[in-house]
Amino acid sequence: MKKMALTLSLAFAGLAHADEGMWTFNNFPADKVKAAYGFETTKDWLDKARLASVRIAGGCSASLVSPSGLVMTNHHCAHECIEQLSSLRKTDFVAKGFFAKTEKDEVKCPDIEMNQLAEIVDVTKRVQDSTKTTAPEKFNEVQRGEIAKIEGECDQAEFKCEVVSLYRGGRYDLYKYKKFDDVRLVFAPEFAIAFFGGDPDNFMFPRYDLDVSFMRIYGKDGKPMKTDTYFPFSPAGAKEGELTFVSGNPGGTSRTLTYAQLESERDDRFPMALSRMSELRGMLTEYGHRGAEQKRHSGSNLFSYENAIKAYKGRHEALSDKAFMASMLKAENDFRAKIDAKPELKKLYGGVWDGIAATVAKAKLQRKEYNAIERPLQGDLFSFARTLVRWAEESQKPNEQRLKEYTKSKEGSLKSMLEANAPVYPELETVMLTWSLTKQREDLSPDSPIVKKVLGLKSPEEVAAAIVKGTKVGDKKFRAEMFKDPSKVAASKDPMFELVRSYDAEARAVRKKWEDEVEGPLKKNQELLAKARFEAFGTSIYPDATFTLRLSYGAVKGYMDGTKKVDPITTFAGAFARHTGAEPFALPKSWIDAKSKLNMETPFNIATSNDIIGGNSGSPVINKDLQVVGLIFDGNIQSLGGDYGFDETVNRAVAVHSSALVESLDKVYGAKRLVDELRPAAATKAGQP
Amino acid sequence: MKKMALTLSLAFAGLAHADEGMWTFNNFPADKVKAAYGFETTKDWLDKARLASVRIAGGCSASLVSPSGLVMTNHHCAHECIEQLSSLRKTDFVAKGFFAKTEKDEVKCPDIEMNQLAEIVDVTKRVQDSTKTTAPEKFNEVQRGEIAKIEGECDQAEFKCEVVSLYRGGRYDLYKYKKFDDVRLVFAPEFAIAFFGGDPDNFMFPRYDLDVSFMRIYGKDGKPMKTDTYFPFSPAGAKEGELTFVSGNPGGTSRTLTYAQLESERDDRFPMALSRMSELRGMLTEYGHRGAEQKRHSGSNLFSYENAIKAYKGRHEALSDKAFMASMLKAENDFRAKIDAKPELKKLYGGVWDGIAATVAKAKLQRKEYNAIERPLQGDLFSFARTLVRWAEESQKPNEQRLKEYTKSKEGSLKSMLEANAPVYPELETVMLTWSLTKQREDLSPDSPIVKKVLGLKSPEEVAAAIVKGTKVGDKKFRAEMFKDPSKVAASKDPMFELVRSYDAEARAVRKKWEDEVEGPLKKNQELLAKARFEAFGTSIYPDATFTLRLSYGAVKGYMDGTKKVDPITTFAGAFARHTGAEPFALPKSWIDAKSKLNMETPFNIATSNDIIGGNSGSPVINKDLQVVGLIFDGNIQSLGGDYGFDETVNRAVAVHSSALVESLDKVYGAKRLVDELRPAAATKAGQP
Repeated sequence: MKKMALTLSLAFAGLAHADEGMWTFNNFPADKVKAAYGFETTKDWLDKARLASVRIAGGCSASLVSPSGLVMTNHHCAHECIEQLSSLRKTDFVAKGFFAKTEKDEVKCPDIEMNQLAEIVDVTKRVQDSTKTTAPEKFNEVQRGEIAKIEGECDQAEFKCEVVSLYRGGRYDLYKYKKFDDVRLVFAPEFAIAFFGGDPDNFMFPRYDLDVSFMRIYGKDGKPMKTDTYFPFSPAGAKEGELTFVSGNPGGTSRTLTYAQLESERDDRFPMALSRMSELRGMLTEYGHRGAEQKRHSGSNLFSYENAIKAYKGRHEALSDKAFMASMLKAENDFRAKIDAKPELKKLYGGVWDGIAATVAKAKLQRKEYNAIERPLQGDLFSFARTLVRWAEESQKPNEQRLKEYTKSKEGSLKSMLEANAPVYPELETVMLTWSLTKQREDLSPDSPIVKKVLGLKSPEEVAAAIVKGTKVGDKKFRAEMFKDPSKVAASKDPMFELVRSYDAEARAVRKKWEDEVEGPLKKNQELLAKARFEAFGTSIYPDATFTLRLSYGAVKGYMDGTKKVDPITTFAGAFARHTGAEPFALPKSWIDAKSKLNMETPFNIATSNDIIGGNSGSPVINKDLQVVGLIFDGNIQSLGGDYGFDETVNRAVAVHSSALVESLDKVYGAKRLVDELRPAAATKAGQP
Repeated sequence: MKKMALTLSLAFAGLAHADEGMWTFNNFPADKVKAAYGFETTKDWLDKARLASVRIAGGCSASLVSPSGLVMTNHHCAHECIEQLSSLRKTDFVAKGFFAKTEKDEVKCPDIEMNQLAEIVDVTKRVQDSTKTTAPEKFNEVQRGEIAKIEGECDQAEFKCEVVSLYRGGRYDLYKYKKFDDVRLVFAPEFAIAFFGGDPDNFMFPRYDLDVSFMRIYGKDGKPMKTDTYFPFSPAGAKEGELTFVSGNPGGTSRTLTYAQLESERDDRFPMALSRMSELRGMLTEYGHRGAEQKRHSGSNLFSYENAIKAYKGRHEALSDKAFMASMLKAENDFRAKIDAKPELKKLYGGVWDGIAATVAKAKLQRKEYNAIERPLQGDLFSFARTLVRWAEESQKPNEQRLKEYTKSKEGSLKSMLEANAPVYPELETVMLTWSLTKQREDLSPDSPIVKKVLGLKSPEEVAAAIVKGTKVGDKKFRAEMFKDPSKVAASKDPMFELVRSYDAEARAVRKKWEDEVEGPLKKNQELLAKARFEAFGTSIYPDATFTLRLSYGAVKGYMDGTKKVDPITTFAGAFARHTGAEPFALPKSWIDAKSKLNMETPFNIATSNDIIGGNSGSPVINKDLQVVGLIFDGNIQSLGGDYGFDETVNRAVAVHSSALVESLDKVYGAKRLVDELRPAAATKAGQP
């Protein structure tokens, strides 16, 4: 990992650099874009872009790219689906790729839900008023109730409704999504080209990845969705210097954390998380040596950890940079001075920073126990079982009193998740559960009453093996039955239910304590902090990312890596030059075979100055004519500090160039029907969604 | 891990608490001990204790416990030997334990070297004078040359000579050791009782471990060593409140680091190391599932990582404690103020702290490359090969110009290490080397010229497998031949030699840069800092630990763990109560079978207030009559912050009680010949070494 020269601007200082910002669609800085790039984003333009964008519930972004519901996203966003289909059909589509020659060959992903943001409604006043006089330790509970009420009043038949806290409580918007859960796989290339360069090249640029998959949304009628709003492909794709927009769902940023919170990230969160994930990484890497099946089963899991480890290391490195931390402290002190200078503001907000610091200290004392008990143990089976056990209990309560993941607005997604036809791998489940039980004993100590209840006189391995062997929660019919009739859960002696139940009272207690003593006070103070920020810097600022739809603007742009100039566009020729023949630098056979047909000058990957972050994977890169010019799949290594601030000189989004998609679909994969759909003959005129 | 309430005293503040300190034998605070415990340690007493103490070169402590060269240490200090003997004799002595019924059944450990500290000579003036006018970037080289000269002048036939830098350069002593490399295994219990409670109980108290092994030193004549200086066993062992001494070799402490160095430990070193070791932990844990042999082969490796991870987490936790860090900063500022107050001191020492901070910043930039290139890759084979390749080169140079691990004084140990009959496990070697090559690529990037040279068009796994298959360095005869005639190394095309050579020039360059730009300036400034400390606080202070012989004093003493009182002595009854039958809480069959014969009230483990740290494993706990009352094998969890300071209220050493050793040797293992040797009939009188 390269040293990051962090000369970050600070979002909350209101001094957003050109190109900085993950803007909400209802507070987009059209004036800034016009000033910088001479192009005006109208309301109509924004509406079209919003409706052509799609969120994948598991943590990715995507876009509609044809009038027949064709969706473009990353290969790594479809990886789990591809792995699951491989198991169900006993063919390794991860290695070999997948292409549905005709519409009827398109095959349903067991467990993918897509959301289209149909409407945004401001509910700030209602949410904030509900807690106006609430004590910190009741704050979370009261607010949760009010949010459940708002979401519950929303039309559940038509929408999936979520109240989103923006600016960490400075504003609350109700996001109404259309929800789709019949999503079918249309195309995925071989893993070897989707992730060419593997973990070593991850977060690197120059880059040569075809990290794409196409899926299609089907309606309740079993037919492809029809849509007026989509992004057609640009005929030429993006050129250096061209204005680009990215519409997607950045997962989370920490640009408005206080200094005490940043210290806690550096000293507590990242070192713990890195150690934990690294252990899993080592375990899963070696697990892959048990056999080819095992390697495939654990592949997407391993990727997630490797990806997260690299990202976390980058963030931790940013926080370990003394100059950066000093700049954050100075910015905070300046902000505090501004507030303290006016007595009425000081009275309202002056105590916020110390309040947050006190909560951070409290969180530190509770975190280990919280993680060991309330965080679900590893594996799908445990998660299924806990969901069912808690659902059985929560579904009997009034909506406002339920735990937030079991409110009415979540029911549809819960049902889809539980009834999905996703395969479960018992061998892997046993290994993961064993690990979790071992870790739980490590964290709580062998003398913990919970550990004694869970393990009794057995080893973690014995307990895990017996439970995985005995449980029925791997069977979707069983799950559907349990979900439908919660009383059956209570009656069932399924060993995974028994495991969950054995310490669920303690887990709930630990969670309540956390929510009352940590989350509530934090939310209350952060809401105050957001208000203080509006007072000090006005409202033309963007909120921290929240895995909701955002628009960023920028341009195709190179940068300096130390003393080396990095061009913003790579070509197919570069990929062939990087090919060694050994994984992960081995191009697939299809590419070697097609080499003579390919235009070697085809742009492959591009770097743009759009401000993005994890969750943006699969976002379309579009031009001012609302045409696809690229497909986001990564950021460069310098972008990892982007969690805390944006450095326009080196922070770059990394995307597949649209021409690389068309050229390879056409000449490597013979996917003419897709090429025609993406680029109808008429598409030589400017795209008109 | 429990929260550590750190109210540490600071060694360099000269305010050592009662019981604090890892004292050198030639600067022992007899007056303090007398004041606190009413017992006077004479020079004769100290000489006897020193000569009855033994260091194990690999990183442990031990003691002579009979006139016939019987040595007591921990099971975990002999673990590797036991594992190696298991492979050589195809019997799993790790699981089953080992007992040589007669002297002729005692079997040589392939690779153990023991050192007895015969003499200490002050060479401070000579070492310090040699660099008086040396520039920082030449400091390391010049000092290394002088040290090699001093060691070279020492009588190599009789001694192994090492110049030890104490107080980080405040004092230099020449330590002359007698060296023994015919060491034979006499007794080891089953792993299940040696490490009862396993990783979960590691660093915990109350505790129930029989972490012991006995070995015997043999002379050149092939007969057991005869010695006048040894510690006989106390008839009754230690009682609560009794004065105890620990004589052993604490590996290293950081009590005199500057604040900038502590920050670097917290932000750079520990997060990186924890992530790295955790990955290896996960990998080795899962590797053990390949089979019973593989589990045994990787066992001591896995233990080292688990042990280090727990220790590092404890230290990182101490450094993440804001109150603790604030106290360290305050102490440093007070110290600086003291120096700055006197113009002549300020002139000499005032710039030291900033100088160290600048070097720390430089180290941060170089560390990743240094680790990736100069740190040996994983596995014994790589280490053998690099040692031979460098030996071939270094042995041709004058002694003062050699890299420090190849000077004349190291030749004997190098030879023993290379010619040892230690088995090598090719499957494990392949896995470890693969991992290292993958990590090297991750750290340097796939575009690094070194990575390209090492991997070429192959994957790390292909390269590792081919090299491990093709190399002969696993064969001790081959190694002996190469060591004897270095020209053969140069002529050999052995693939592991080729791997080492492929980037040895770069590795040496990176090392030279590190030594010139980091080590040299650091040593120079630390030497100044030590002098400043003597000026400010006098010379009655103890130096940071350096894996050389130290004596600490304390007492058998309980403590408060939060609100819970912890008694300092556990019993056999407690072990049986903790037995669940599942690993790692399963007592071995021998204990279950012997239960009715055992006195359940036998003291098993004890906690004492002696100030120790890693490296002290295997140290004897002795009473004022120089009798063994216990055997150190661990510290409690609260002792982990002991790297940075000693908190007498909770920091405890953990030892096996001498009575537990005698009772179990006698009644569980039927090892009467050992019991008689440890406790001759005459031993009912006070021990008289």
